[in-house]
Amino acid sequence: MEERSIGIDIGGTKIAAGLVNQDGEVVCKKIYPTPKESSQMVLECIKEIVTRSTLYAEKEGIKLVGVGIGSAGQVDYKAGKILSGTDNIKDWNDIHIYNFLKRYTDLPIWLDNDANTFAIAEYALGNAKGTEDLICLTLGTGVGGGVISNGRMVRGKWGGAAELGHITVDMNGPACNCGSNGCLEVYASGTGIANRMREKLSRTDVSSYTENPNLLTSKEVFQLYDQGLPLAKETIDQAIQALSYGIVSLIHTFNPSVVVLGGGLVKERDWIAKAIKNSIQDKGMTSLIRSVDIVISNLGYDAGLIGAAYQAWFHKKVD
Amino acid sequence: MEERSIGIDIGGTKIAAGLVNQDGEVVCKKIYPTPKESSQMVLECIKEIVTRSTLYAEKEGIKLVGVGIGSAGQVDYKAGKILSGTDNIKDWNDIHIYNFLKRYTDLPIWLDNDANTFAIAEYALGNAKGTEDLICLTLGTGVGGGVISNGRMVRGKWGGAAELGHITVDMNGPACNCGSNGCLEVYASGTGIANRMREKLSRTDVSSYTENPNLLTSKEVFQLYDQGLPLAKETIDQAIQALSYGIVSLIHTFNPSVVVLGGGLVKERDWIAKAIKNSIQDKGMTSLIRSVDIVISNLGYDAGLIGAAYQAWFHKKVD
Repeated sequence: MEERSIGIDIGGTKIAAGLVNQDGEVVCKKIYPTPKESSQMVLECIKEIVTRSTLYAEKEGIKLVGVGIGSAGQVDYKAGKILSGTDNIKDWNDIHIYNFLKRYTDLPIWLDNDANTFAIAEYALGNAKGTEDLICLTLGTGVGGGVISNGRMVRGKWGGAAELGHITVDMNGPACNCGSNGCLEVYASGTGIANRMREKLSRTDVSSYTENPNLLTSKEVFQLYDQGLPLAKETIDQAIQALSYGIVSLIHTFNPSVVVLGGGLVKERDWIAKAIKNSIQDKGMTSLIRSVDIVISNLGYDAGLIGAAYQAWFHKKVD
Repeated sequence: MEERSIGIDIGGTKIAAGLVNQDGEVVCKKIYPTPKESSQMVLECIKEIVTRSTLYAEKEGIKLVGVGIGSAGQVDYKAGKILSGTDNIKDWNDIHIYNFLKRYTDLPIWLDNDANTFAIAEYALGNAKGTEDLICLTLGTGVGGGVISNGRMVRGKWGGAAELGHITVDMNGPACNCGSNGCLEVYASGTGIANRMREKLSRTDVSSYTENPNLLTSKEVFQLYDQGLPLAKETIDQAIQALSYGIVSLIHTFNPSVVVLGGGLVKERDWIAKAIKNSIQDKGMTSLIRSVDIVISNLGYDAGLIGAAYQAWFHKKVD
C-alpha cells in the first residue's frame, strides 16, 4: 500500500494542498484562494483539505502517514502553533493549528514555517539531496531562512531560529523593520531592493527610470538592470554584495555543503548564484568556503507543498 | 567507584591536564609548558599525561571514562585530527592526535577545538547549565565560537562550524585576516581592538596615548578607556557595537537562551556583558532578543581543562 502525506502550503494569496509520496509526486492537488475574512476561515479550509484528502486516500487505497503544514511567519514547532504570521493573512497570530486540527484527524500533524519546509524539500529531493548540512535562503518580499545541520533542523529554544534575513551585514546600514540595522533583508529582498533603488533615485533625475518611485518594484529594478541603467546596476550589485557577505558569514557559522537560494527574486536568474559563488571565492576561510555549492532551487512550483508534506518522513528519520 | 575523565587543554603557552569528575572537580592537575621544539614533542607530552593519569587512577581506585582534549585551531572532530592549529604551537597542522594516542590507551578519545570545549563546560557546569541552546564567544587574541543547539554541538560538514569571530558585521569595514571584511574579530578581539585604536591614533597626536603605537595592546586600550581618553572610548564603544550587532545576528540565527562570553578580554569586565545586553534591547526581533541572557563565564581558570574532559559525558549523553 503506497504511503502518502497530506501537504498544505499556506500563503497570503493561496493555499496549496495535495497528497505527496516519498518521491515528491503529488496527486489530488488543489489550490484554494486564501480566505480573507478571518483566521477561522483559514482553519476551516485546512480542515476541509484534511477531510477531503482522507476520503480520497481511503477510496484510492493510499496509506496516509501524516499531515504536514507550512506557513509564513514565526511558528512554535513543538506546540503546532502560529506565533506571528504574515500580514497577508488576517489575524494570523497565536493560532493553535495542532489543537484545532487534532479534533478532526488521528494522523500525526506537523507545522513549520515555510522556509524550514523549503529546506526539508531541498534536503529530501532537491539540490541538497545527499548532504546533511545545508542552508536555504528564500528571497521574496522578505528574506527567510532554513538550516539543516547534521541532518537536523536548527530550531533553537522555541523554534525561532534561522531568521537569516535578519543577520546584519552592515551595522552602519539602513534601519530594518526588525529593529536592527543593515540586515540582509534590507538589501536583498524585493522590498529591500525597491527601497535601496528609491534611495538612489532621490539623488537624481528619476524620469529616465520610473514615473513614480513610490510604486517602484524589485521586478522593475531588475528590468532597469537588464537595460543597463547605472543606479539599477548599483542596487543589484549591492544586493549581491550583501548576499555574498551574508553567505560567507553563514558558511563560517554552519560549515555547510550547499547553500540553496529560492523564492521569486532568483527564479530563472541562475546568474545570481554564479555571481555570489564568484564573489565569495576570495572572501573568508578557504577551508570552509571553497567547497560550498551555491545553487538556485530547481524544485519548481510545488516545492512548498512537497516540503510541507515531507515533514512526515523527515521527522520520522531524525527525531 | 568514582568516574573521572582525563582532560587536556592545549594552548600556545601551556598544556593543562587533570582528572575531572562530573561535578567539574579536578585532581592530579599538572601544568606543562607547551614544548616549543616540534609538534612531536607536544604529542609526547600528551602521551605522558595519559600514561601518568592512568597509573594515578589505578592507584587511587578511579574509573577512567575517557580522554578529552581541547586545542586551539580548526579540528576534524570525527577523525580526531588537528587541521590547522594556532601559530603559537610549532607545526600544529595536520596532526592525527587520535591515531597517535590510540596506540597508548584503550580509553575513548575526544578532540575538539577549545571554543567548543568551552561551550561544553558552560553547558554542563557554567552559566548555561540547564539550557539546550547556547552560544559561546571567546574574546582573546582572536574571537572564537561554540554553539550548542538542541543539546548538540553545531559542527557542520567536517567540524569547521561556529567560526563566530568571522561573521561580518560591516561589509564595508576593514579587511580581516580570514579574507573577508568587517568580521566581528576585526573589532572585538585583542588584536582587533589594538588595530582599530592604531587607526584612530594615526589621525591624531599620539603622544598623550602611547609612546609607540606599534606596540599598543588591547590591555593598554582598556587602561586608556578607564582613564577616559576619547579615542580609546571610541574604540571600545565600537567593539561593543560590533559585539551587539554580531550577537543580535547570532540570536536571530540560533534562538538561544543564553550567550556566554569568555576569554581574556572580558575577564573581570562584567560591564561589557551589561553594555551589550543594554544595547541589544532595542535591536532585532523582540520575540527572539528579549529573553536572552548575556553573561560572562564564571568557570574560572580551569574552564578549558574541565570542558576538554567533559567531552566524555557530553557525547555519551547526546550521540
